[in-house]
Amino acid sequence: MRVVGTVAELREWSRGVRQAGGAVGLVPTMGALHEGHLSLVREAERRGDRVAVSVFVNPTQFGPGEDFERYPRTFEADCAMLEREGVEVVFAPGVGEMYPAGAAATFVEVAGLSDRLDGASRPGHFRGVATVVTKLFAASEPERAYFGQKDAAQVAVLRRMVADLLLPVDLVVCPIVREADGLAMSSRNRYLSAEERGRALALSRAVRAGEAAFRAGERGAERVADAARRELESAPGVRVDYVAVVDWATLEPVERVEAGCLLAVAAWVGQTRLLDNAILG
Amino acid sequence: MRVVGTVAELREWSRGVRQAGGAVGLVPTMGALHEGHLSLVREAERRGDRVAVSVFVNPTQFGPGEDFERYPRTFEADCAMLEREGVEVVFAPGVGEMYPAGAAATFVEVAGLSDRLDGASRPGHFRGVATVVTKLFAASEPERAYFGQKDAAQVAVLRRMVADLLLPVDLVVCPIVREADGLAMSSRNRYLSAEERGRALALSRAVRAGEAAFRAGERGAERVADAARRELESAPGVRVDYVAVVDWATLEPVERVEAGCLLAVAAWVGQTRLLDNAILG
Repeated sequence: MRVVGTVAELREWSRGVRQAGGAVGLVPTMGALHEGHLSLVREAERRGDRVAVSVFVNPTQFGPGEDFERYPRTFEADCAMLEREGVEVVFAPGVGEMYPAGAAATFVEVAGLSDRLDGASRPGHFRGVATVVTKLFAASEPERAYFGQKDAAQVAVLRRMVADLLLPVDLVVCPIVREADGLAMSSRNRYLSAEERGRALALSRAVRAGEAAFRAGERGAERVADAARRELESAPGVRVDYVAVVDWATLEPVERVEAGCLLAVAAWVGQTRLLDNAILG
Repeated sequence: MRVVGTVAELREWSRGVRQAGGAVGLVPTMGALHEGHLSLVREAERRGDRVAVSVFVNPTQFGPGEDFERYPRTFEADCAMLEREGVEVVFAPGVGEMYPAGAAATFVEVAGLSDRLDGASRPGHFRGVATVVTKLFAASEPERAYFGQKDAAQVAVLRRMVADLLLPVDLVVCPIVREADGLAMSSRNRYLSAEERGRALALSRAVRAGEAAFRAGERGAERVADAARRELESAPGVRVDYVAVVDWATLEPVERVEAGCLLAVAAWVGQTRLLDNAILG
C-alpha cells in the first residue's frame, strides 16, 4: 500500500490503472475510520476496483465553531486498517495540496439541496462537501466512488452534482453499518462519554419507530416523523436537530410517504451531533 | 470529421484517443465561427492534439434580456470550416444533453473574479461560463483546452477555476485575431450595421492608445485607462461599459501598471456589446 500526498502522484497511479485496463474505485473519507468506511472499501473490491482511499479532513465543510480542530485524526491506525483490506493507495494530502491558492475562490454549489436537512443546520457545509468531492474526483479520476447511506443528504447532494456536472463517475451508496446495539457507526461516536453513548441509541430507536409506523401502514409523513420524534424527545440529554421525511432525490418534504422516501434524523447528544436514517419500504 | 450530439459519444472518442496514446485538445465555442476560433484549432494541431470543437450556445451564461435567442447560429458553415481545418470531432449537444435535469441545480462559481469586468456588467455570466466549461471538460476529458485572449476576463476566471478545482487540463490562451483594420474578431460583429462597424474601431483605437501611453512610460493605471477611455468617449454612437487596468490573474484594479497587466475595454456600439484588450508590456 502506498501513501501519497500529492495530486500528481495520485493521478499518475490512477492513469496507470486505467491504462492497464483496470477501474479505480475511490473511497473519500476524513479518516478516523470504522467498519462503515471499511464496508465501502470491501464493496469496491467486490466490484473488482483497484481502491484508493482519501483521508482528508476538509476545512471548508466545517462551519465556524464546529469541530474541525478536534475532529479525530488517527492516521496510523487508519493506514493499518486499510492495508489489511488490500487498499492500493492512501491519498493523504495536506490542506495546501487541496487548496493550493489558499482560500479557494472556486466553489461548487448544488442549489436548493444544499440548504436542506444538514445544510439547513450547517450553512455552507454542503458547498464545502461538493467542492472537495469535485476536487477529489479531478485528482483521482475514478470510475466509481463510494459513500455511506449514513450521510443520506450528502448522497443526495453528490448524486445531483454528478448528474448536473456530467462527471464520469458512478456513485455507489452502501448501507449504514451499525454497532451491535443499533448505533450507526460514525467517527464522531468517539466524542461520546459512556453516558452519552447510551443516550445516543435514541437515534436508531427513532428511525426504527418511524419504519415500524410505515410498515404498519401509516403513510402520512408527519405521523411517521412524529413516531421518530417521540423517541428522540423522550430521551434524556438528546436534543432534536431535525426529523424529516423527504424525497431522497430532492430532499424536499413529502406529505404522503412512498417506498423509497428517506426518513432522516439528526440530534445533539451533549456536544455531539449525530445522524441516522432509513430508506422506507 | 464526426459530428456527435451526446456526451457518451464524445467521451468514448476521447478515451479512445488517450488509450491510443494521443492527447485531446478541446476548443469550446458557441459557434458562429471566425478566424479567431480557427486560430485556436490551428494552435491545438500545432501542438499535436487531436481536436474536438464544441459548438454550444450555453443558455446559462446569458442574462435576461441578453442576446441568447438571436445569437448567430451558423452550424453548417461552422462545420465546413472545421472540416477544412482537420478537426476530428464536433460536439454539438442540445440543451437537454448539457442540462439533463432541466434547470440545473449545480453551479460552479469563482468567487470574486466572477463579479469583475464583464461579470460586473453581466451578473451571473461567469457562473454560467464556469459551470458549462466544467461540464465540457467532464464530457471530453481533454489534455488541453484553448481559449482566446479576446475574452480576457473569462480566461482569468477559468484559469482560477482550473487551479482551484485541480482539473487535469492545461489552458492554452491564444492571441486576439483582428480584421485588417484592427477590429477584434467576434461572433457579435455580425450584429453591426455598416455604420456601426466603422464606429466599433474605437475599441481597438482605445486599446492602442492605452498601449501607447504605457510604452511612452506612463505607469499610472488611471492615466493609461484615461488614454483608452478618451478614444471611446470621443467616438459617436459608442457607449463605454468599462475601461480597466487590472492584474490579469485576479482582475483587481492596479494603481501602478506593470508588464503583464491587462488593459481591457468593453463598449456598446448600438445594441451590440463588444470587447477588446491588451496585455501591457
